[in-house]
Amino acid sequence: MTALTRIAALDAGEDHEATMDIMSLSQRGERPRVVIVGAGFGGLAAAKALAKSPVDVVVVDRRNYHLFQPLLYQVATAGLSPAEIASPIRGILRDQANARVLMARVEGVDTAARAVVAGTYRIAYDYLILATGARHAYFGRDEWERFAPGLKKIEDATAIRRHILTAFERAEVAEDAAERRRLLNFVIVGGGPTGVEMAGAIAELAKRALARDFRVIDPRQTRVILVEAGPRLLATFPEDLSAKAKAALERLGVEVMLGNAVTACDEGGVVVAGERIEARTVIWGAGVAASSAAKWIGAEKDRAGRIKVAPDLSVPGHPEIFAIGDTAASTGADGKPVPGVAPAAKQMGAYVGGVIAARVRGTTPPGAFRYRNYGNLATIGRKAAVADFGWIRLSGLPAWLLWGAAHVYFLIGFRNRIAVVLNWLWAYFRFNGGVRLITDDRK
Amino acid sequence: MTALTRIAALDAGEDHEATMDIMSLSQRGERPRVVIVGAGFGGLAAAKALAKSPVDVVVVDRRNYHLFQPLLYQVATAGLSPAEIASPIRGILRDQANARVLMARVEGVDTAARAVVAGTYRIAYDYLILATGARHAYFGRDEWERFAPGLKKIEDATAIRRHILTAFERAEVAEDAAERRRLLNFVIVGGGPTGVEMAGAIAELAKRALARDFRVIDPRQTRVILVEAGPRLLATFPEDLSAKAKAALERLGVEVMLGNAVTACDEGGVVVAGERIEARTVIWGAGVAASSAAKWIGAEKDRAGRIKVAPDLSVPGHPEIFAIGDTAASTGADGKPVPGVAPAAKQMGAYVGGVIAARVRGTTPPGAFRYRNYGNLATIGRKAAVADFGWIRLSGLPAWLLWGAAHVYFLIGFRNRIAVVLNWLWAYFRFNGGVRLITDDRK
Repeated sequence: MTALTRIAALDAGEDHEATMDIMSLSQRGERPRVVIVGAGFGGLAAAKALAKSPVDVVVVDRRNYHLFQPLLYQVATAGLSPAEIASPIRGILRDQANARVLMARVEGVDTAARAVVAGTYRIAYDYLILATGARHAYFGRDEWERFAPGLKKIEDATAIRRHILTAFERAEVAEDAAERRRLLNFVIVGGGPTGVEMAGAIAELAKRALARDFRVIDPRQTRVILVEAGPRLLATFPEDLSAKAKAALERLGVEVMLGNAVTACDEGGVVVAGERIEARTVIWGAGVAASSAAKWIGAEKDRAGRIKVAPDLSVPGHPEIFAIGDTAASTGADGKPVPGVAPAAKQMGAYVGGVIAARVRGTTPPGAFRYRNYGNLATIGRKAAVADFGWIRLSGLPAWLLWGAAHVYFLIGFRNRIAVVLNWLWAYFRFNGGVRLITDDRK
Repeated sequence: MTALTRIAALDAGEDHEATMDIMSLSQRGERPRVVIVGAGFGGLAAAKALAKSPVDVVVVDRRNYHLFQPLLYQVATAGLSPAEIASPIRGILRDQANARVLMARVEGVDTAARAVVAGTYRIAYDYLILATGARHAYFGRDEWERFAPGLKKIEDATAIRRHILTAFERAEVAEDAAERRRLLNFVIVGGGPTGVEMAGAIAELAKRALARDFRVIDPRQTRVILVEAGPRLLATFPEDLSAKAKAALERLGVEVMLGNAVTACDEGGVVVAGERIEARTVIWGAGVAASSAAKWIGAEKDRAGRIKVAPDLSVPGHPEIFAIGDTAASTGADGKPVPGVAPAAKQMGAYVGGVIAARVRGTTPPGAFRYRNYGNLATIGRKAAVADFGWIRLSGLPAWLLWGAAHVYFLIGFRNRIAVVLNWLWAYFRFNGGVRLITDDRK
């Protein structure tokens, strides 16, 4: 029974046979195979765009779940549980008969043989889509990552949550006043959406949720310091919204430092503008470094490590390989760089799915990729946000309501949507910071 | 400002001072101090029973949360999130003005100086309540723990969840048929409530939630084998309910092996009755081994390591030290051993709180501890359970509904109750095994 007839049998509702047959990954099947590496917003959009095409889709990810990254900071700040913003990839693609999912860590690509290498597996492809995302960049100071973790994975979020909550626990019993202050100082590096949202959420956690939980320290004396090297927060937003975000953060008690980069970082704090800020918690939200995908295929990359792609998002010299989302450096048809945000990754995934479908069917492929910006949103604490749609700019409560509705709408899975809405409503009325667990899988 | 006046100031709603004052842990305060080690069912019940007494209560736990252990198996089988069955201790005791919480790992007790030793801290006590719980026992084969983890902590549950889900992922790509079978075999050791509930939940996860998620394997071919050394399941229940539980498990496809102990265990399976069962997943739910509390105070212990306590649950020779819950071996006033269940721990905690309150006030302490059994409940899969209340025995759906209502009622925190009910309703109607995340904090 070949892979194809096996899938056909499954489609027809026929049962599995008692003697199971392995669908060969290393051999090509009868239909063209599209291998997608990474099940983020871009990779999943590409898989779905190919649902009706005569291809076999293989989605490879080292995780078994898709992560709704825009809400990851709420896991880090004890507002949501990991399961509320993550959804098993197999569940998402369950009903797409031409897609299968493989949980494996990709280590390279054999472009000559057209095969993805993942541990002991070789996965042959006819078309390859690289959608492996990005991490934060430490600007050549990778040793800072130990002291100032970034926020890209669920494990990052639970580690930061553990770190933040443990800092309050340690402060409660610290006998040295300087150490106690250090434990209650929180530095966030980077004034993009991640930094702004983290700063607001930590300030609210300390000043509202934890305010009455301790007997010795007063969590309201927590200092939250947001450091941005550029002249304003949220650089991709219009200037007036940057100013509104800064004012909203300051109302929450966040200290915003603009125009100065971090020049040193260790386990006791950072140095900004020649001045040392003592802090046991430093969180990194600056810079972008793409994954290793460019290295796998020996492609030309930009300074952030992103693959420089052609107007159809294919890799020059490899018309069968595409890069999308944070893995790609694309200028789009309008000559402007495509931003590293979820909507852009989704649009790129759907576009590449269309390109491959057209090539397989022999029809005319779509013109060059064009990014459509439907708006930018960022939230500041429990009831403020800024939103920019070009034709209208919102701030304050209207922007926050819009932010909430948009995020819940795009969350994958009806169940997760209900859970998140309930958590938010609960937090809104009780300021209770519900998910305050210090867990540690290493023990 | 002393510890006491500090608490009084907090009670009166006065703000913290800018210069914080440390409440000394190593010195006794003006009021008798009751130190409670462990914030499980017993420890929290003791703390609450002392809320109105003229004492200072210090609750020490190495976790920052109370765990609702009876539902832990649902975290291990991807039904619930950790935060839904765990609640921060500080939140639970927030409004109890005479209680403070300390997150620290207790390493010993200096009974001569009356101080608990936890890392660099020494916590002086006038009364000490040991409520440190138990783990599973490997009957002298501690090396088996590596291959057959038990289920007592959140980290155990997320590790088992990761192990179970990863087994299906590995089976999907296994090229060797024997290895694939090994990956789809799940052995549960111990036919008590934990084993029965785990076996039912894994069978349902495989046969319902995951049934359509894979393309190569058929999760419905999973074998779930429950091994019990004794002659029947749920030995503390009446015999007819044991038989009903066995029949209900078998309807779910679980293979129940009675009257045979595991004689060998390694990473590829177990040996039962001289026969090897190949399995990559073995879960241990047998035996009870109390924590190290008996060693800390040099007390006499039973074979399971539990402290042999006097009729008032104090430790012979140490009228100021009490042991409760799984830490104590008590026969109760009726001469029957008190079982190691949550209701017993709660009753013992409340009782000891009353004993200490009477001694502090100089009133007559209550008579010997007497355990009241209000009933036993165990669940089998998604809609069956067995319940024994002495005067009435239930099984099937009525018992399951009762089981659900009882567990939700006793869950700490209104928010958690709502979340759990929603998750269960969702699972009931969709069989969706919602929390299928393979996360790993070690990476």
